[in-house]
Formats: sequence, structure tokens, C-alpha cells
Amino acid sequence: MSSRVASAPASGEDSLIARYFKPIATDPGAFALTDDAAVLQARGSDIVVTTDAIVEGVHFLPDDPPETIARKALRVNLSDLAAKGAQPAGFVLTLVLRTADDAWLKPFAAALGEDAKSYACPLLGGDTVSTPGPLTISITAFGRVPVGKMVQRRGARPGDRVVVTGTIGDAALGLDILKGGAVATAIAADAAARQALVGRYRVPQPRNALAAAVRAHASAAMDVSDGLAGDLTKLCAASGVSAVIHAPGIPLSRPAAALVAQRAVDIDTLIAGGDDYEILCTVPEADFEAFAQDARRAGVPVTPIGAVIAGSAIPSFLDGQGRELALKRRSWSHF
Amino acid sequence: MSSRVASAPASGEDSLIARYFKPIATDPGAFALTDDAAVLQARGSDIVVTTDAIVEGVHFLPDDPPETIARKALRVNLSDLAAKGAQPAGFVLTLVLRTADDAWLKPFAAALGEDAKSYACPLLGGDTVSTPGPLTISITAFGRVPVGKMVQRRGARPGDRVVVTGTIGDAALGLDILKGGAVATAIAADAAARQALVGRYRVPQPRNALAAAVRAHASAAMDVSDGLAGDLTKLCAASGVSAVIHAPGIPLSRPAAALVAQRAVDIDTLIAGGDDYEILCTVPEADFEAFAQDARRAGVPVTPIGAVIAGSAIPSFLDGQGRELALKRRSWSHF
Repeated sequence: MSSRVASAPASGEDSLIARYFKPIATDPGAFALTDDAAVLQARGSDIVVTTDAIVEGVHFLPDDPPETIARKALRVNLSDLAAKGAQPAGFVLTLVLRTADDAWLKPFAAALGEDAKSYACPLLGGDTVSTPGPLTISITAFGRVPVGKMVQRRGARPGDRVVVTGTIGDAALGLDILKGGAVATAIAADAAARQALVGRYRVPQPRNALAAAVRAHASAAMDVSDGLAGDLTKLCAASGVSAVIHAPGIPLSRPAAALVAQRAVDIDTLIAGGDDYEILCTVPEADFEAFAQDARRAGVPVTPIGAVIAGSAIPSFLDGQGRELALKRRSWSHF
Repeated sequence: MSSRVASAPASGEDSLIARYFKPIATDPGAFALTDDAAVLQARGSDIVVTTDAIVEGVHFLPDDPPETIARKALRVNLSDLAAKGAQPAGFVLTLVLRTADDAWLKPFAAALGEDAKSYACPLLGGDTVSTPGPLTISITAFGRVPVGKMVQRRGARPGDRVVVTGTIGDAALGLDILKGGAVATAIAADAAARQALVGRYRVPQPRNALAAAVRAHASAAMDVSDGLAGDLTKLCAASGVSAVIHAPGIPLSRPAAALVAQRAVDIDTLIAGGDDYEILCTVPEADFEAFAQDARRAGVPVTPIGAVIAGSAIPSFLDGQGRELALKRRSWSHF
């Protein structure tokens, strides 16, 4: 039992929770974090459950600020809820920490609380455990959808449009910059672009404003987290269809487009890079105008990039001349 | 981006999930693990949410069998649901792995699937991420209770009986044996006792059979995970009361009682050790007979060990002569 740290009843873990996380656990179902469990009221809805962990050195870098780590941990989950057409309902947090470092925990909890408030996704509970390994943050988030209405990956039909929100590839470029890769050199003179791309890697902007439109119009949807090409492949596989994408139509940010134009990066990097946290969905042709209008009202840019076709082939990405791009990779995996 | 492992669309992570976890994700809300999220149907109930992570070297030992690690990871959460009076409804799993080792994952998933089935708590989804650090398993489990009926830590009233299920301290002794501590020496001759105590540490026996009785009769409840003394202190603090415990009345297993009798361990070790995963609850005097009867029907041994009293003092543990025991510690903490 010697590896366990004996302590007085007001243990380090408890006072850590009280100090930093109790103030942000304002939902009555959280019982101010003084209970073993939380209550999530379903209010007649289905509960959508999603869980995503982020690991130091894998999903964020050791010297990323605690504020951006907190926001990313929650937002990668909010992004899943958005893509499923669900309204955020709350989340639980598991913090796997090396040390209980106040200078790190205080800004982490504050930023998490801000996001919980602005996305109306309250902290309901959590667990804090020690590790000799890398900092790991696991969040399970909950959303509400009308019964039976969660938007699935399966459901895409030949003829549907393939649509993405925002721009693709920025986060992959941001990560390369943080690691001092080729992009860092290519973009050295443009501080604003550098900052914008790094920001996309560190702090996703989940598309929760689009959830209702996705639920109303999309035949299938998921968020883009492991690379557009690979994630589209997964969506098509789940739906039993294929797709053709017009690669020059994939929406790029100004800095990403400039880097492609000067051949500092190729398209593979952008569409296989991951960490976009945009929504990829398929929308029946007849619904597309209404979907685009709802998206405009929600303030979320959406771009049609191709079409669902019949078949089981891996989706193809065509260049401006209609030739299929030979992608060196489509996504990434932990193992 | 070099730290990320590029891969074909059928990535290692995806095929790992398909191979080992899809077969046990039989609930329709899990979508055979092919979606980003799961659906949990509330069926008119409140959803009780609990989350507990276990870390290699902290909550289990590096050479513990994968089967027992899987069962412990789920059961520590099932134990929380039981103490809250909730019926298991499902869980999500976050696996933080060093390597995707088939020889480890196969028995892990099989044992997890067995427990999911026998406790009627289906796997709904999860996330698998890589780490250079220790194996960490985070589970968020869900239960259903009638709206507003979750049993809380607060609610204990002066005069209520303090009750525990099963026996206390066995898991702490089991851990000491696995670490080759003093208990290992004291018990060297008794292989059956050694095995029983180690089993209590490795594979908790959560008291889900008692959930309905707890909901019907307990004024407050929690599970004993960090040591009876410390957990009772938490329950009393949440309820704004104190308690007096008759220490000789704390139920001990035969091997634990023998070790105390031969002075190989003291009572502190047993009541501050943790990992019991028994239920600690308070039951109004008028309800006690009915509670005990329901417990008998459920096949769960329950023992009254003391009484709730007014006040804010830390609960006291009295010896056979009514003298207060000076506890060196009451529980343990990660930090």
C-alpha cells in the first residue's frame, strides 16, 4: 500500500477539485461535485454520448498553454455532438495528472469553465488520478436529440452532395509550424498567418451552431478529426456508398491556399492531416438550398465539395482536370 | 506531423476496435462502434453518470491479468451506480495504451464483454489513444433512476443507522500481498486466504443487487473506494452530520479477522485502505428492518456499524471499551 499517498480526510485530490472545478460545476445535477455521480435529465430526449481523450505529445504539445488544452479537450467532444445534430447537455472530465500544479490547474479550469458556459455544456463530474506518464484528459460529453433523431454516419445515398464546413487542413499546418517543420520555414515572414494556423490546431471551433441544420437536412454526418480523406472513407463505408470529390473545390484558408500555390505543401497534407473539427455531411440534392440557407443564418460557411456515388470503392479525389489524385495517405491512426 | 502514424484507411485503431470491441458492443445504441457517438435512451428516467479511471501502478499492478483489469475498470463504476440506487444502462470506454498488443487486448475485451453482459451494462462506445506512459482505462458509466430519485451522499440524519455491505479491508490486504508486504509474510502458509484477498483487490464485487433496496430505504449512500473511514467522513460532511462507529462491529472476512487477531495488521489498515467497493449507507431506524429484509432477498450481507449523530466533528471509531481509536490515516489520495 506504500505507493498510495496517505492523507488527511481533506485530501489533496478533494481540495484540488473543490478549489478549481467546483466553481465551474454550477449545474444542479453536478451536486457541486460532492457526490459520486451526477444526474443528467433527459427531458424526453435521447442522450447522445461521445468520448474523446487527448494526450500530451499526441493531441497537444507539452508547452501548449493550459487554457488551449482545456478548450481543445472539451471542443473535440462538442464537435462530435454538433455533427450528430445534438444540443450540448453536459460533460464529465477525467484528468490524469503527473502533479497537482496550481499554476497549471487554475487557468485550465477557468478556460474550461468559460467554454462550458458559452457552449451551454455544464461540467457534471469527473475523476482525478495521478500518473507518472503524460498528461491525459478524457472527456465524455452528452447531448440531447429528439428520440431517434441522432444523425449517423450511415445514411448517405448516391446523388447526395458532400459538404464540409469552414476550411480544411489549417490545423495540420499549425501543428507542423509548432514542430518547426517545412511549413514553419515557408511561412516565417507572415506572423498573422502563423498565428491563425497554430490557433486552428490548438483551439478547434466546433460547429454547434449548425447542429439543428444538420439534423434537419443531412442524410449522414461526422466531424473531421482524423483527416478529411480518411473520415469521408469511414462515412462512405458506414453508408455502403462511395464518393467523388472535386479537390480544387475543398475550401482552404488564405494561408493554406498560399502554401499550396507556392508548393510548400501538397493537398495530401491538408486532407489527411486531421484536427479540423469541421463537419462533413451529405445532403440530398433536394435539401441543399434549405440547408445552405440555415447555415447562412447560423453563420457557418458550408461548401459542397463533391457527390455521393454508388459502389464500395474508396472515395476518389479529382484534380482540376478530372484526374484522380494518388493520395499517399488518407488519415492517421494511433497504432 | 511526423509523430503521427500515417496509415491506410483501415487504420490500426479502427481494426483494433472492430476486432475486439465490436463483438461486445451489441446494444443498438452503440451502432456497432461505427459511429462517432452512441445513443442512450432515457426511457423516462434520470440518467446517473459516473466516471472512474484506473491507472497501471496505481489502481492495478503491471502484471495483473488483463481479465481482472477489465473487470475492475468496469466494476468500480458499477459500484458507484449501485450506491446511487441506479440500474446499469451502459458505459463508454477510453483506453490509453502503449501498444496495441493482441495477446493483451483479446482477453481484456472478452472479460469486459462478459461483465457488460452479466451486469446488463452494454458497451456504447469509446476512444483508443496511444501513450508512452502507463496503461490507463477511463470508464464513464450510466444508470437509470426514477426522476429525482438518485441516492445522494447528503441526506443522512442524526439517529440513522450506518450500514456497510460485505466485509471491509480485504482489498487493502490483497494489495499488500501482491506487493510482498507484511501481510504476505503473515499469511504465507494459507494459500486460500491469500488468493481470496488478492481476488478482492483485483476484482471488486459491486453490489448492484442492492440498488433497489438502497433507493427504497437509504437516506444517503456512497461506495467505499478510498477507505471506509475517509469515505464516511465525506458522506457526513455532505450531509452536515457526524457519526460514531463501533469498530469491533465492522464486518471482517475470516482471513482479515485472523490477521487482526494475530496483530499482523491494525484496524487502520483495514478501514483506510480503499478498494473495498462495498456500499456505505445510512438508513433511518424505522426503515432498517425492511432494508435488512430486502438485502437478504437480494443476497447481500449488510451490517449496521454505528449511528449518525448531530454535529460537524469527523466521525469517531470506538474500540470495544468505547475509547476513541486514534487513526493514523483515514483514506488515501492521489496528490
